[in-house]
Amino acid sequence: MTSGERELRRARAYLSRVAEPPAPALSELIIDAGPVRAARLVAAGQVSHWVAAETGARRADDRAEADLSAVAALGGRLVIPEDAEWPAEAFTCFATPTAQADDRWRAPVALWVRGGGRLDELSERGVAVVGARAATGYGEHVAAEFGYDLAEGGFTVVSGAAFGIDGAAHRGALAAEGRTVAVQACGLDRAYPAGHHRLLDRIAEDGAVVSEYPPGVWPARHRFLVRNRLIAAFATGTVVVEAGVRSGARRTAAAAAALGRVVMAVPGPVTSALSAGCHLLVRDEQALLVTRAAEVIEAVGRIGTDLATPLSIPRRCTDGLNPELLAVYEALPARAPRHPEQLVRDSGVPLHRVRSALPLLELQGLVGCGVSGWHRVQPDSAS
Amino acid sequence: MTSGERELRRARAYLSRVAEPPAPALSELIIDAGPVRAARLVAAGQVSHWVAAETGARRADDRAEADLSAVAALGGRLVIPEDAEWPAEAFTCFATPTAQADDRWRAPVALWVRGGGRLDELSERGVAVVGARAATGYGEHVAAEFGYDLAEGGFTVVSGAAFGIDGAAHRGALAAEGRTVAVQACGLDRAYPAGHHRLLDRIAEDGAVVSEYPPGVWPARHRFLVRNRLIAAFATGTVVVEAGVRSGARRTAAAAAALGRVVMAVPGPVTSALSAGCHLLVRDEQALLVTRAAEVIEAVGRIGTDLATPLSIPRRCTDGLNPELLAVYEALPARAPRHPEQLVRDSGVPLHRVRSALPLLELQGLVGCGVSGWHRVQPDSAS
Repeated sequence: MTSGERELRRARAYLSRVAEPPAPALSELIIDAGPVRAARLVAAGQVSHWVAAETGARRADDRAEADLSAVAALGGRLVIPEDAEWPAEAFTCFATPTAQADDRWRAPVALWVRGGGRLDELSERGVAVVGARAATGYGEHVAAEFGYDLAEGGFTVVSGAAFGIDGAAHRGALAAEGRTVAVQACGLDRAYPAGHHRLLDRIAEDGAVVSEYPPGVWPARHRFLVRNRLIAAFATGTVVVEAGVRSGARRTAAAAAALGRVVMAVPGPVTSALSAGCHLLVRDEQALLVTRAAEVIEAVGRIGTDLATPLSIPRRCTDGLNPELLAVYEALPARAPRHPEQLVRDSGVPLHRVRSALPLLELQGLVGCGVSGWHRVQPDSAS
Repeated sequence: MTSGERELRRARAYLSRVAEPPAPALSELIIDAGPVRAARLVAAGQVSHWVAAETGARRADDRAEADLSAVAALGGRLVIPEDAEWPAEAFTCFATPTAQADDRWRAPVALWVRGGGRLDELSERGVAVVGARAATGYGEHVAAEFGYDLAEGGFTVVSGAAFGIDGAAHRGALAAEGRTVAVQACGLDRAYPAGHHRLLDRIAEDGAVVSEYPPGVWPARHRFLVRNRLIAAFATGTVVVEAGVRSGARRTAAAAAALGRVVMAVPGPVTSALSAGCHLLVRDEQALLVTRAAEVIEAVGRIGTDLATPLSIPRRCTDGLNPELLAVYEALPARAPRHPEQLVRDSGVPLHRVRSALPLLELQGLVGCGVSGWHRVQPDSAS
């Protein structure tokens, strides 16, 4: 590791503790200034009102070295966006205008990871299977079946390692000797729930136990809601197996929908309160009804199949753009010119970054500038 | 009863036995010639090849008087389209171009009825609750709940009196002291299934036991499929509670959809083969998922509410047209003229009847005739 790399990792470790995620103002600062400079500015308190509000309480508490050592001692590592294994492809979902329009849907600053799998590979064909903690025997049975069949079909089963549906889904995947990812709402040193200590170890063997929280952080209630967005982001589709009408699983479904993921729900007896949330998702047309893994694979597989046969789909002109450039490009209407000021809201990108993004897009032949502002250049469809 | 009325009823009684329903050619002859003359022509064998094919085997077997007496002895009656209680409003579903395009969806020639309710009133707010004979305890519980709640909400519960879901739905309605209709696939003298003999008697008290088959006819397998269209027609919406992937209940759902009815399905455990048909209906977007009677009422109630507040909806120019005139009018495109020959297929009305229908529609100011054919007259929206 070069000293530059070490400095980068150290900065991200510091930033991952200094604010409670999702921290939209801090995220923006990191994009603007880069992580090393952002860490220095935050530590010195030389930041905007908004960043100060997110970081003020913890900025003096620099435990980056200790955190990195503690996680290394657990056999873990810090994965940062600058790493090759960062799930950049999966996390483009945070860069869409819809996601950018809501402060809740921000990509993590870094991820604390324990496990033998690479995050980019694990997230490539991920399906989230989530649901109630106090699940019924029916729900656990179905979750285990789905977990088994999805893993056997080559999908990574993503869940939250909780009791009930989550645990059953992980176990099903492990029984099929497949790969599974647990996203935690606490530091990696806190096995949560404690009763799943051994399960988490087994998940880490070929898969990964992932958290955006540094060591020592406790799984407070609000962290589960924040964590749920990462479960949704890690997977192409999210299956809700059992959920009450007001439940974390339904919130994960809402996150998945906001992040442009396929949302699915498993029906159950209408007499079961734990299936009521699933039925509501279907009735409200927020989820597709699925009864077995093959139907899940059919729903998410369209994307997988497309990826597997890239020759059959025309390459899109925006392929290869980073999330910020993509967001600016997408904020531009197909046929009407816009000034940079008008693109800030729709793209979710700050004005000075919009101003630098537009010439970069112009260099790639995607946009042009005229008297009434910037406009899209219609790409040659054969390109 | 006048001698003319008696003759009409006698003719329909004869016609209801002479062909196996649905008999599209015979239906057409009855519309063309009227029932009395049609009966005479059939009995004499002076009919087209198509009508002869439907009636040849039984035309010599005139048991009209005996059938009428037999049903009267059971406390029943023959209800014919010329009667005030004929469910003419409900049966307009047989006159739509979609229904007319398929020989399976023909209105019955007459209905043999036992029961204290009037058919027009019973069908006004009907909901069909149907499903598997070999239902699970779960399915029967749900069917009984739906039956009870729908009856309590003022709806007539329509079903087929079979074991399993049907019986549970009828019983639920009776428990709520509501009204329920059983449509049978056999003569009224054959209580079917025999084990539901007493249930059928209770249904007949305030509701009705209905059949298009004259006394003595056995419930052969194909008659259940034919009967299912009447269950669907009698109700504004059809709820499938439990059904296998290949099942009569799914066929009732298909009939209901073809007849323009709201189709609903109740989910259940994905591990139950008896819920698989329901899940398939929802997945194929052929049915709305419903979990309780209130959701059924919401789905069918829109229509009920509209009927209850006629002042709030603009009167349609086609209100008051008989089914045949409506079919001819609807077969005419909004903005293109057509010759009578071109309207036969879409309207399902024979050419000579199309030719007589068009001038009648013209008298009502709905169509006009120009050099390129007949065309719709756009009605004054204020009328």
